[in-house]
Amino acid sequence: MTNIYKNAMKLHKKLKGKIEIKNRYSLRTSKDLSLVYTPGVAEVSREIHRNRNKVYDYTSKWNNVAIVTDGSRLLGLGNFGPEAALPVMEGKSMIFKHFGRINAFPVCLATQDKDEIIRTVKQIAPVFGAINIEDIESPKCLEVVEALQHDLDIPVFHDDQHGTATVVLAALINALKVVDKDLKQARIVVVGAGAAGLGIVTILAHVGARNLLAVDSTGIINEDRKENMNPYKRQIAITSNREKINGSLEDAIRDADVLVGVSGRAKLITRKMIGTMSKDPVVFALTNPEPEIMPADAKRGGARIVATGRSDYHNQVNNAMIFPFILRAALDARISKIDEQMLAKVAKNLSRLVENKLRSERHILPPLNDKRILPAIAKAL
Amino acid sequence: MTNIYKNAMKLHKKLKGKIEIKNRYSLRTSKDLSLVYTPGVAEVSREIHRNRNKVYDYTSKWNNVAIVTDGSRLLGLGNFGPEAALPVMEGKSMIFKHFGRINAFPVCLATQDKDEIIRTVKQIAPVFGAINIEDIESPKCLEVVEALQHDLDIPVFHDDQHGTATVVLAALINALKVVDKDLKQARIVVVGAGAAGLGIVTILAHVGARNLLAVDSTGIINEDRKENMNPYKRQIAITSNREKINGSLEDAIRDADVLVGVSGRAKLITRKMIGTMSKDPVVFALTNPEPEIMPADAKRGGARIVATGRSDYHNQVNNAMIFPFILRAALDARISKIDEQMLAKVAKNLSRLVENKLRSERHILPPLNDKRILPAIAKAL
Repeated sequence: MTNIYKNAMKLHKKLKGKIEIKNRYSLRTSKDLSLVYTPGVAEVSREIHRNRNKVYDYTSKWNNVAIVTDGSRLLGLGNFGPEAALPVMEGKSMIFKHFGRINAFPVCLATQDKDEIIRTVKQIAPVFGAINIEDIESPKCLEVVEALQHDLDIPVFHDDQHGTATVVLAALINALKVVDKDLKQARIVVVGAGAAGLGIVTILAHVGARNLLAVDSTGIINEDRKENMNPYKRQIAITSNREKINGSLEDAIRDADVLVGVSGRAKLITRKMIGTMSKDPVVFALTNPEPEIMPADAKRGGARIVATGRSDYHNQVNNAMIFPFILRAALDARISKIDEQMLAKVAKNLSRLVENKLRSERHILPPLNDKRILPAIAKAL
Repeated sequence: MTNIYKNAMKLHKKLKGKIEIKNRYSLRTSKDLSLVYTPGVAEVSREIHRNRNKVYDYTSKWNNVAIVTDGSRLLGLGNFGPEAALPVMEGKSMIFKHFGRINAFPVCLATQDKDEIIRTVKQIAPVFGAINIEDIESPKCLEVVEALQHDLDIPVFHDDQHGTATVVLAALINALKVVDKDLKQARIVVVGAGAAGLGIVTILAHVGARNLLAVDSTGIINEDRKENMNPYKRQIAITSNREKINGSLEDAIRDADVLVGVSGRAKLITRKMIGTMSKDPVVFALTNPEPEIMPADAKRGGARIVATGRSDYHNQVNNAMIFPFILRAALDARISKIDEQMLAKVAKNLSRLVENKLRSERHILPPLNDKRILPAIAKAL
């Protein structure tokens, strides 16, 4: 077990929970109690009963987010279920709080049934200002998000889909500037056709990328393929592979300018494959905790710019740069839906935070604690 | 609007949420992030995946409670729905935290359907160490509690039923000592046959009270009655009214030693009714926020000892003295069910915290901030 895993275990054992509830008013006297609880609180309830919208003014709803998962695709680990998902969702909650001042509560579900997930989230929605869907396997997660966005009047953010796509676009804009290539012309291969793959293909096409291919475990995705398809892969095929190219992962990577790995499969990409890419290749190996290829290997294979999803390497391309800020901005503006145009705008604003003279192979995104991130994202909404 | 209501409104408007999520570890560096989130957290997830029970050691589950309501019987206010229930549940959460160091999250449901409530709670249970059912109308709440206690492996506490019964018994033991009457012989009338009524009748019978009557809006509850009955009222009838007495609220109160109001109906009891009770009557008017009779009125009617559920009068008999402590103790001992015997023991231990020489008409319970409450309750479990 590496050191980081040992230390993480030790820390978690000591903390026994990385988040807790904190009272925002001190209960010193029985008078305090009579204000925050009965009888005083009754008047607040009466007011909200008269006008339900007032729940945003008198309670925590405006700033509450549910982090919803069934643990069916936990990080890149697999179907680990709700209990094993809890430490990850607590970590997520910490990031929401630290960077976005948001109260995000982990909702790890006992069910992995699509309809049951949708139903449960709708039932618990009244106390939340937004929903964040997390680590549910694809394409189930996409159907869940679609249904909830349709049925709920609060924003439903899908981190793996919207968050990852946004941060990838932001990082890619800068990476391509470093290697002096044009996003619209660049040959871009997205490895993985789950939520992240769909999100990335969608946003890249939205901003004009024309040479896009997506690959799943069966090979290059194209409209005419029959095996291992679903409505979302069909959407990917139509959006990306206009020439209906067929082939393997290796075929797709050959001569590509950019490889974006969101496959959920550790060590999928070899040094040799990187060697077949075009000049100055850009490699984003974003699967967590073990990327598709380790940065040192990618470099040795010839990659000019390498990024992972992890915070212990250079160039962390992680949706942590998006979700706390975009939901902070959405909650503040009481936006009921975050659309593709907003996401693209967010990515462009983010990429601009890296000044020309600072931009380099190892610096394609601002640091996560950059105070300009929130205003840049808020402006996009 | 009275002052307390005005001040409560002002305070709630200022706070915009009485509770929040707090991080228990500071995210100063990217190393911190790599321990609490990816990649470090993956090892914790792997460990819990291997042994699901470890979720109690590495996450907040051991100390998380869901406060579940559908807002169908909010305080004594009526069917106010989930949004109007939120400020009350946030207040509840504050009490859980302040007195029990418990992280209690408000779950205010969009549904009022019994089966849907049961189903939803089961789906969200994995992240909680206990469930607290709150302000759901009767008898639905009783069916919900029964089903959940059967299906879940964590304790399901029903505040209105178990909590209220326990604090009433504790207070009554001392009140009857003050007026020098015997609990087993005393004529006790419980007004209200919802969750609290059932809980109180059950616990009083359990400790040997023999002259018990319960009254609902139709009159005295007895086994042979046909109108306005349900399985739980039948249980009340069998447990309380052994002589199958018939009659009105007035009939029940006449010559009673003790009146316990948990009717949910403000001003139901008149001064005149109190006048018909036996010598040294004990009146617990516990409906919130407006009790069945105001303390001054009850006194004028001849009551020797008066209690309400409110913190702005003497003798607050409120389940706030039970739920944070009993759930703290249950979580610590990892008890999977809290039974009648435990509740009776808790009440007796609580009543003993009022020393003989301190016991008086205005002092039948220890103050809520008495540090001995938690150990006294923990000992009973």
